[in-house]
Amino acid sequence: KIAGYIRKAGKQVLLSRVSAYHKDLNETMLADKPDCAIVLGGDGTIIQTANDLMTYDIPILGVNLGTLGFLAEIEENHVMDALDRLFIDDYRMESRLMIQGNIHYSQQHTGRYENTTGYSLNDIVITRKGFSRIISLGIYVNEELVDNFQGDGVIISTPTGSTAYNLSAGGPIIIPRSSVMVITPICPHSLSPRSIVVPAEDTVKVVVGKSKKTQEAEATVTFDGNQVYELGTDDIITINKSQYDTKLIKLNQTGIYEILRSKLSNNGD
Amino acid sequence: KIAGYIRKAGKQVLLSRVSAYHKDLNETMLADKPDCAIVLGGDGTIIQTANDLMTYDIPILGVNLGTLGFLAEIEENHVMDALDRLFIDDYRMESRLMIQGNIHYSQQHTGRYENTTGYSLNDIVITRKGFSRIISLGIYVNEELVDNFQGDGVIISTPTGSTAYNLSAGGPIIIPRSSVMVITPICPHSLSPRSIVVPAEDTVKVVVGKSKKTQEAEATVTFDGNQVYELGTDDIITINKSQYDTKLIKLNQTGIYEILRSKLSNNGD
Amino acid sequence: KIAGYIRKAGKQVLLSRVSAYHKDLNETMLADKPDCAIVLGGDGTIIQTANDLMTYDIPILGVNLGTLGFLAEIEENHVMDALDRLFIDDYRMESRLMIQGNIHYSQQHTGRYENTTGYSLNDIVITRKGFSRIISLGIYVNEELVDNFQGDGVIISTPTGSTAYNLSAGGPIIIPRSSVMVITPICPHSLSPRSIVVPAEDTVKVVVGKSKKTQEAEATVTFDGNQVYELGTDDIITINKSQYDTKLIKLNQTGIYEILRSKLSNNGD
Amino acid sequence: KIAGYIRKAGKQVLLSRVSAYHKDLNETMLADKPDCAIVLGGDGTIIQTANDLMTYDIPILGVNLGTLGFLAEIEENHVMDALDRLFIDDYRMESRLMIQGNIHYSQQHTGRYENTTGYSLNDIVITRKGFSRIISLGIYVNEELVDNFQGDGVIISTPTGSTAYNLSAGGPIIIPRSSVMVITPICPHSLSPRSIVVPAEDTVKVVVGKSKKTQEAEATVTFDGNQVYELGTDDIITINKSQYDTKLIKLNQTGIYEILRSKLSNNGD
Repeated sequence: KIAGYIRKAGKQVLLSRVSAYHKDLNETMLADKPDCAIVLGGDGTIIQTANDLMTYDIPILGVNLGTLGFLAEIEENHVMDALDRLFIDDYRMESRLMIQGNIHYSQQHTGRYENTTGYSLNDIVITRKGFSRIISLGIYVNEELVDNFQGDGVIISTPTGSTAYNLSAGGPIIIPRSSVMVITPICPHSLSPRSIVVPAEDTVKVVVGKSKKTQEAEATVTFDGNQVYELGTDDIITINKSQYDTKLIKLNQTGIYEILRSKLSNNGD
Repeated sequence: KIAGYIRKAGKQVLLSRVSAYHKDLNETMLADKPDCAIVLGGDGTIIQTANDLMTYDIPILGVNLGTLGFLAEIEENHVMDALDRLFIDDYRMESRLMIQGNIHYSQQHTGRYENTTGYSLNDIVITRKGFSRIISLGIYVNEELVDNFQGDGVIISTPTGSTAYNLSAGGPIIIPRSSVMVITPICPHSLSPRSIVVPAEDTVKVVVGKSKKTQEAEATVTFDGNQVYELGTDDIITINKSQYDTKLIKLNQTGIYEILRSKLSNNGD
Repeated sequence: KIAGYIRKAGKQVLLSRVSAYHKDLNETMLADKPDCAIVLGGDGTIIQTANDLMTYDIPILGVNLGTLGFLAEIEENHVMDALDRLFIDDYRMESRLMIQGNIHYSQQHTGRYENTTGYSLNDIVITRKGFSRIISLGIYVNEELVDNFQGDGVIISTPTGSTAYNLSAGGPIIIPRSSVMVITPICPHSLSPRSIVVPAEDTVKVVVGKSKKTQEAEATVTFDGNQVYELGTDDIITINKSQYDTKLIKLNQTGIYEILRSKLSNNGD
Repeated sequence: KIAGYIRKAGKQVLLSRVSAYHKDLNETMLADKPDCAIVLGGDGTIIQTANDLMTYDIPILGVNLGTLGFLAEIEENHVMDALDRLFIDDYRMESRLMIQGNIHYSQQHTGRYENTTGYSLNDIVITRKGFSRIISLGIYVNEELVDNFQGDGVIISTPTGSTAYNLSAGGPIIIPRSSVMVITPICPHSLSPRSIVVPAEDTVKVVVGKSKKTQEAEATVTFDGNQVYELGTDDIITINKSQYDTKLIKLNQTGIYEILRSKLSNNGD
């Protein structure tokens, strides 16, 4: 239905409902350089699409099918109105910082794994895996040691991701226009579980340490809760601001503080 | 060496260094009803021994081989002095609350698994497993709904366990003589990550909910960080004060607040 | 109206709407040994009444005139039903732990002040006063040093008070039947702001330290947010379980967890 | 001694030990446009000097006389070395964000008070005053309502101030180069005590609400823990990035993370 309405208006727009669906479209439809991608779904679907379209520089309009989200801009029943506003260029574009994590496997793992890079609109999470009770992580900012961390893991989050896992782990809310990243420990063995906010231009480095019991670290790094890689002792993840960003189409339906208050009073559901 | 000293004194004492070691001893040595078990090792080894000896009602003297612990009573080089004090009955016995968790598998799992019971001196932890991002748990106290929890999991801790994983997850410190349990959420999706302290006589019930993505919950329950069972949707863990407790031999070397201050200033290492 | 209904039933009940009102009644009405006190008002009024009636051992029925409270048992429009249930003895009595704080002024202050004792159903709060930025407090449990605290102050709370100021300062929720007190720091200068839960039988001692700037501490101790005393350097507050308790009449209208969930989703309003 | 050494080198430097001391110097010495101000003392003295010198654009070198600080760059016994490096221009200048708060008194107060502006290198703190238990504050960012806050107060902190009162109240650590402010509630009545990080270009507005009991708010606003103004109902504080900043002379003796780790392991003393 939405597709038909757009076609009548003679515009080229990419529709994505679920990741499986638009995977097929990538090749053909993206070749036509659509003006924007309309994503039907929750924040998860929008983040997935942001990752898929990252290199194409296509702005995204999120359409909320379920509960109120931080990224979806409009409710389902306002789609047509929204399209009309898009057609007459009555909207604002908001650029959202993305981060990238480069995995450098230590010599002992390089036979098995290839160094790789992942991208995140929300967060990069390094956690213990399986039955290892505690993980040791060396955390550095601009090559300066921040802390030798012991606990469940660490989250490096963008402002966009600050209201996701970072918030559950006790981190601060960061308004998206802030040009920073936040490092938040997950269940630290230490008693000082404070988040550290660093300029987006800084480089965060996480070095996987030895586990006490097995002498072999069991860890994973997860990009946007989706892409998962296994890590072992001495593997290094280097995290930087990405050259890519995500452009969100804003129609100013709901302010971020209004969404926050609503989420707060619903206990985050 | 310690064994020789004890033998000379004509006393019957169980020595345990690592769990593997005293496993062999169980049958024969425990038959002799030793007066106490001397555990050489950290808090982890003491907890392990407490679980192994639970039904035998044998008091434990923890000898610290490494860093300061909450359960170990003496340093390695004070063992002989400690033994002398034991021989002349110059010590105090401290009873530590243990909890038990009964796993009731839902009908769909009862073919595969048998209902079972685990015991903990520290804590019973129910967490998400593998790549499921969020777990849903129904938490009840005395059959009254406390909360429908979403997040990484929940800890039910004894006072003894309050300085372990509970503390990492933001829970309060509970002085061991308090007759309570504490329920602490791990990275709750909600914004109100508060621990709830309940009388030790209450019954805590945790019901595993459906996961959003797979529709099949992937969870585990872990007793004292050691015994692990897999859980699925609708499985239930019922947690009560155990009929067993752990008796620790106290020689009043170091007070709990002194240990706490020391741990605090070392960031818990 | 309520009074008339009760009189018809031939019972003796104390009605209190505001503290000013029942102050006059104390002498005459209390002489008649009323069976119970019906308090119309919020949690604040009930706590006030609990303090006033403490020594008379009269159970209290809280009638909620405003928003949902933790202590008020019934809504205004259910008063008559509640009375009927009282008349046929269809209710449960819940005993709530109270604490008492003895103020021992140091020699330099004893000329000006007299040692005194205050009682609390909720909490005893020691805070910095006026423009002193930080207060130093020595905190002891059973004469063992817990910590030399620096910050805004400290709360010693009963289980009943755990959902009041203690909760705002980051402390845990404690179910009323638990026989414990909780010590919660307010904005501690240290990075380890953890509450400590101690058995109700323990004795908490707080010693006012020297302030950095003025060399003369400016502090206050407040009982149930109402009775306030000024403190100076070396003054000592000793806190114990009180011989008195507060008896609440429970008609099981709303469970504590239901109230908690309701409060949580309204952000505590 | 230091003064002599500098004079020999023919440089013009302002020395400040305590605020009382350099107050006298302001008129005469500042007329000579000193190249830098050497401040002997803790972080408090440096912040005081930063406020005093704000409009003169004179860089500050902090010399630590006591415990390790976040702002003092060198220890007392390295002063001469430091001066030598200053003389040969071997140093880095670090600009620190300052904020300003404009107090607009409501009509009912404008007879008594004059609208005024305060500046802070650390923080602007609005708190309840005296015996009012709870303060109500409307908090806005860029005229959008963030929250109607109830509790002890709110801190608006610069990155420099994030390790001061903000940290005690549970706020995140913010690395000074980050161009943000952080809003941290103090003991919020609500259960969601999260800090909000906003771009430094945003405008934070705090409106003093009515207190429940007295109908007349009793509040104060404090600039850098030093300058204090009383506030009443409907008074407004508008907080912005200041046109002034503080320039710190950095000799890279100790990195910020090293200071943080040191502070953490000493519990912030």
